[in-house]
Amino acid sequence: MNKTELKFVHNFLYNLSKESRNITLNGFAKVTKEFDYKYDSSPVTKYDIQAEKKLRNLIIKNFPNHNVYGEEIDNIYNSSDYTWIIDPIDGTKSFLIGRPLWGTMIGLIEKNNPIIGLVDFPALDQVWLGDGSKCYFNKKKINFNISQNFNLSKSNVASTDPSMFGDRGLKKYNEIISISKNNFWSGDCHNYILLISGSLDAVIEENLKPYDILPLIPILNAKDIIVTDWQGKKLKFNFHKNINYKVIASKNTKLHNEILNVIND
Amino acid sequence: MNKTELKFVHNFLYNLSKESRNITLNGFAKVTKEFDYKYDSSPVTKYDIQAEKKLRNLIIKNFPNHNVYGEEIDNIYNSSDYTWIIDPIDGTKSFLIGRPLWGTMIGLIEKNNPIIGLVDFPALDQVWLGDGSKCYFNKKKINFNISQNFNLSKSNVASTDPSMFGDRGLKKYNEIISISKNNFWSGDCHNYILLISGSLDAVIEENLKPYDILPLIPILNAKDIIVTDWQGKKLKFNFHKNINYKVIASKNTKLHNEILNVIND
Repeated sequence: MNKTELKFVHNFLYNLSKESRNITLNGFAKVTKEFDYKYDSSPVTKYDIQAEKKLRNLIIKNFPNHNVYGEEIDNIYNSSDYTWIIDPIDGTKSFLIGRPLWGTMIGLIEKNNPIIGLVDFPALDQVWLGDGSKCYFNKKKINFNISQNFNLSKSNVASTDPSMFGDRGLKKYNEIISISKNNFWSGDCHNYILLISGSLDAVIEENLKPYDILPLIPILNAKDIIVTDWQGKKLKFNFHKNINYKVIASKNTKLHNEILNVIND
Repeated sequence: MNKTELKFVHNFLYNLSKESRNITLNGFAKVTKEFDYKYDSSPVTKYDIQAEKKLRNLIIKNFPNHNVYGEEIDNIYNSSDYTWIIDPIDGTKSFLIGRPLWGTMIGLIEKNNPIIGLVDFPALDQVWLGDGSKCYFNKKKINFNISQNFNLSKSNVASTDPSMFGDRGLKKYNEIISISKNNFWSGDCHNYILLISGSLDAVIEENLKPYDILPLIPILNAKDIIVTDWQGKKLKFNFHKNINYKVIASKNTKLHNEILNVIND
């Protein structure tokens, strides 16, 4: 993708997130603003699907030859090198109960590699975009560098929920907790952003779908956050394979290797 | 306390939270806005203590004869029937890593009973106040009634962290999880507010200090949320006893009794 095309995609992604917010915030507002206490899981699906339909239609209109891969609706395969990946509401459980940490994720994959990604937190009015080399927060480029050289015992680690791990994975993650400074449960996509903006140092998860993680990679890589699977390999997308990713995202190589050693011990 | 005094306390609490925000948001902004990646646990203590000092000074100035009981600084006992309870940053761990769910809690106790409480979420710009009969969100009275008659299998339950439970407590809470519809970790004081504003139905915790829970009670009781210890008894304050509370807060009697039965089985 050349520079002009990439610039177009940047703006297109911002427009997508704006359109999506109009739908998702409407559903979230029911919980936090109108105090609709009868709220249950069905409206969540409704807002998820409405948002994904809206995003798909805009993508198909602007990039009719690309592939589309989403959480809620059947995928579209056009034999293109480019695939759009959509998760209208990552952190559905948070959305459901009124925690503002859920996000909308949209990423563009070239062949097997995520090249640009956006994550929007509508309830926090925060949008992140990254293309592997540059990272933007609320459309403003972030210039600092976060790489540091510390180890697991000084690290704050996070993972969304114990129930997302398999038995062996949970055992290994509990080992990580026991070595780390602090552990934080819950958070979904928000945890990954806290690797850049906050004091989280590593996020470790199992059983993630492509739309749960791939849009984040170009954002994280742009700020030198390392993202690999539990073998230390890059996460690759394959349209035709149903992959569950095991993920380690961390702030520096020393920490990353230490986590890999614990997990593969 | 008569009506005029109570009205004065309402406004006084709002003023306290405003003053506290000036200090705490300054610390939190470092994480989320200025991306100070060198942020560690020491500044948290600094903002905690600064905020508590500010709140104490305002309380002492306005109510020189009352007692004051806080998280960070030595308590003041004046043999008064009234005790102010302060937690400048509840959810310090969230504050530390950049999750916006931390809150400032301030409550007034008459003898052993919390009679008015405020919880402020500076990063969300949300303030809750309750006096046992009336509940206000961002200074606006909430008029709906949330009481419903459902059981644990249809309920969303939450607790801040597995590590806050003792062995027996964690075993019991895991039983609760297995029966419930969904479980949510993390959240601190924000979980209790989601009993009113969101789809959380019960919050269960062990090892809470007076400032972690008592300011919430007049807010929750005003909206018919039931709050008891694990024996089903009301939570009582005692200035001279170091009490660790075990708490169940839930939306209706049926659910509350079911939880009590599981926990005391």
